[in-house]
Amino acid sequence: MTAARKREIHLNLNILNVGVYGSAWRWPSVDPAAFVDPAHYIRCAQIAEKGKLDAVFMADKPGLVDHPQYRPFQALDPLVVLSGIAATTSHIGLIGTASSSYNSPYNIARRFASLDLLSGGRAAWNIVTSAEIEIARNFGRSDVTAHADRYAIAREFVEIVRALWDSWEDEALIADKAQGLLLDISKIHPIDHQSKNFSVAGPLTLPRSPQGRPVLVQAGASDDGRNLAAGVAEVIFTLSQTLEKSIDFAADIRRRAASFGRVPEDVVILPGLCTVIGDTEAAAQARRRELEELVPAEYGLARLAGTLQVDPDLLKLDEHLPEDLPIPVNHNQTMFAGTVAIARRENLTVRQLIRRLGGGAGHRIVAGTPEQIADDIGTWFAAGAADGFNIMPDVLPEGAETFVTEVVPILQRRGLFRTEYEGSTLRDHLGLTRAERGRFSTAI
Amino acid sequence: MTAARKREIHLNLNILNVGVYGSAWRWPSVDPAAFVDPAHYIRCAQIAEKGKLDAVFMADKPGLVDHPQYRPFQALDPLVVLSGIAATTSHIGLIGTASSSYNSPYNIARRFASLDLLSGGRAAWNIVTSAEIEIARNFGRSDVTAHADRYAIAREFVEIVRALWDSWEDEALIADKAQGLLLDISKIHPIDHQSKNFSVAGPLTLPRSPQGRPVLVQAGASDDGRNLAAGVAEVIFTLSQTLEKSIDFAADIRRRAASFGRVPEDVVILPGLCTVIGDTEAAAQARRRELEELVPAEYGLARLAGTLQVDPDLLKLDEHLPEDLPIPVNHNQTMFAGTVAIARRENLTVRQLIRRLGGGAGHRIVAGTPEQIADDIGTWFAAGAADGFNIMPDVLPEGAETFVTEVVPILQRRGLFRTEYEGSTLRDHLGLTRAERGRFSTAI
Repeated sequence: MTAARKREIHLNLNILNVGVYGSAWRWPSVDPAAFVDPAHYIRCAQIAEKGKLDAVFMADKPGLVDHPQYRPFQALDPLVVLSGIAATTSHIGLIGTASSSYNSPYNIARRFASLDLLSGGRAAWNIVTSAEIEIARNFGRSDVTAHADRYAIAREFVEIVRALWDSWEDEALIADKAQGLLLDISKIHPIDHQSKNFSVAGPLTLPRSPQGRPVLVQAGASDDGRNLAAGVAEVIFTLSQTLEKSIDFAADIRRRAASFGRVPEDVVILPGLCTVIGDTEAAAQARRRELEELVPAEYGLARLAGTLQVDPDLLKLDEHLPEDLPIPVNHNQTMFAGTVAIARRENLTVRQLIRRLGGGAGHRIVAGTPEQIADDIGTWFAAGAADGFNIMPDVLPEGAETFVTEVVPILQRRGLFRTEYEGSTLRDHLGLTRAERGRFSTAI
Repeated sequence: MTAARKREIHLNLNILNVGVYGSAWRWPSVDPAAFVDPAHYIRCAQIAEKGKLDAVFMADKPGLVDHPQYRPFQALDPLVVLSGIAATTSHIGLIGTASSSYNSPYNIARRFASLDLLSGGRAAWNIVTSAEIEIARNFGRSDVTAHADRYAIAREFVEIVRALWDSWEDEALIADKAQGLLLDISKIHPIDHQSKNFSVAGPLTLPRSPQGRPVLVQAGASDDGRNLAAGVAEVIFTLSQTLEKSIDFAADIRRRAASFGRVPEDVVILPGLCTVIGDTEAAAQARRRELEELVPAEYGLARLAGTLQVDPDLLKLDEHLPEDLPIPVNHNQTMFAGTVAIARRENLTVRQLIRRLGGGAGHRIVAGTPEQIADDIGTWFAAGAADGFNIMPDVLPEGAETFVTEVVPILQRRGLFRTEYEGSTLRDHLGLTRAERGRFSTAI
């Protein structure tokens, strides 16, 4: 099913509120309250669809984290907003985050299955395990579950959700008006999952969707995370600063996927790419500097300390990072590693690092003309470092509009990106076939 | 705030899949698979909005219950579908059910607050406690929690949700671009709820909405249920076969509401009303008989046995109901009481009762011309038996379209129903003022 697939760039728009920069909300064109306005996200998604992108993505944090006084955050429930997007778009894929630590598998399976039907087969679930203590405390916990345990629970959670998504055979809905038989319930199967973590009888209340079932997305960076991603994810978000590391990451993921019995090419790997676009390279660099300077200083230091999981007092603005930073166990290791790597490689002081990051979470930033952005994308794609990108514009919706009107046509002219949607489901866009009904073991 | 309120009929469309009749899916105009097609619900909501109705309602059962082989059921997640409706309508209120037994307060607060923002202040939460064992088994339980305990948990759950909805002062979002201060976090308050049932730190991630916070809806019939409804609900759905009983119910609810320190008139009481509309009374009665005859016989008996919580073998088709039916403790007591009352009052055999119910859950059915339906509505409203109705058309969308184009104009001509929306929020439609920020005790 993958051998004949034409290799094509896949592009996802990460609607990171009003932009990846911590200062985006201060940008002249931006409504600073847009992060709590669903209409803003719908507008961004419509821009992405105009550009024929594969999907939009909404991250999630069900709690007030990361110094909200200084910058927008994931305030709205992604499934609610994505449902609004589904009803006002026709083709764009819809990727939403939901935590396996603070939801029930039955609710998650049913909500994403409902979104998949509402959108005609365009839904995807980004699985996270939620490392933040502020979130844990909103859900009856006084502390965050240990990393390995969270991932073990996530694996089991995903198996339950997949089994629920596939609990109806496609022939179950017979709707025979004459005989008065709506369903053939012999073709709808309980899942009867029982373990110390979960007890879920099933079946789901819903049939399968035009794409079979929602696409699974993951962004694991740790060993546990990579195994979860390689084991179940069809799209993988990743953070990578260099082409070489990205090639290594892709090879590692595909090797792990093969070891789980999967076709390695069925995993679509999308590194994050922050874009700062200008008419000239100088204009783009100036725009980048301006955005860096607008990041509130208090935020930059607090955010860096949070990413590194150190006391802010340990970070001296005009010194380099401490040498012996321990890898944080219960925190985002992708961001930690990416941030430290930038500081070491570019030999930055803390002050320089804060500006360099721009509140941008350590993802790779490319500032340049539309040609230069397209060149960069093409180079990484040709080298096998990426199947496409998780695009994080500097400022939204402005940066998305520029990307779609300036960069996408260049990629299209080069034959690297679709000029029209060829199918209607997210799996179609990703070059994946409709998901066959699986026999997922739920006995883990 | 209520003294000067003009008394006006309130109408809600209950989108009970493809109609209240168990046979609606077999009706010629109906797509029998529409119950799993979100576009069907969006279409019904757009019809309701065309008729200037107050709101639409989606019930919910997160599990396969009530003999799904024979009739449609609440398959889709209501919040997902209502979010799709929100994005494709401008005024209609959006009432969705969610269970306090199988959700986290934080997720429910955030999802409904997100819907409230997406819709510009049109969201409402119908609180249920979920009595079905099939649902319990999807959420890690081997049995249903006892009735009184479920309601005690529901009361606490609602207090937490209200406190979260009000955790931001309206002045918290300052968005001062020049100073680089987005939020005044001194105006965003944790709720720090701690009990044996729930531990929720808060605050919510979202500001309050144009209507303050989502409307609360309840349909309690038991003593516990009536206290929950009178204590917190702003809209009450009820089942009532007779005008006298409905007047008694309204008086009881308002008395209880007053005892909780509430303004009794701030509770909008909407009995269920199943409508079967024909050009002539004879045509309406013929339509009703046809719908009754289309109810699959196996379903009628199985459903009745389920409502009464007895073994189907105890029900003899040509005999009356057994005399000594015990009130079911862990099941829907509203439906039980309504069903038994019809059988006794009209002296029906089981066979006659099954046909009489039509799979319609015991709600009052009026079959007649548009004039007759409007007369009935006007009479109940004038007598103080109802503030309006929860309209359950026989068949959807057909019955909703007929109600909106034939019955609504009569009510409008009589000055009983709005001809245009006067406000934009659901509280506006219901004649309620914007919810002031409360100080809800979460220490129960």
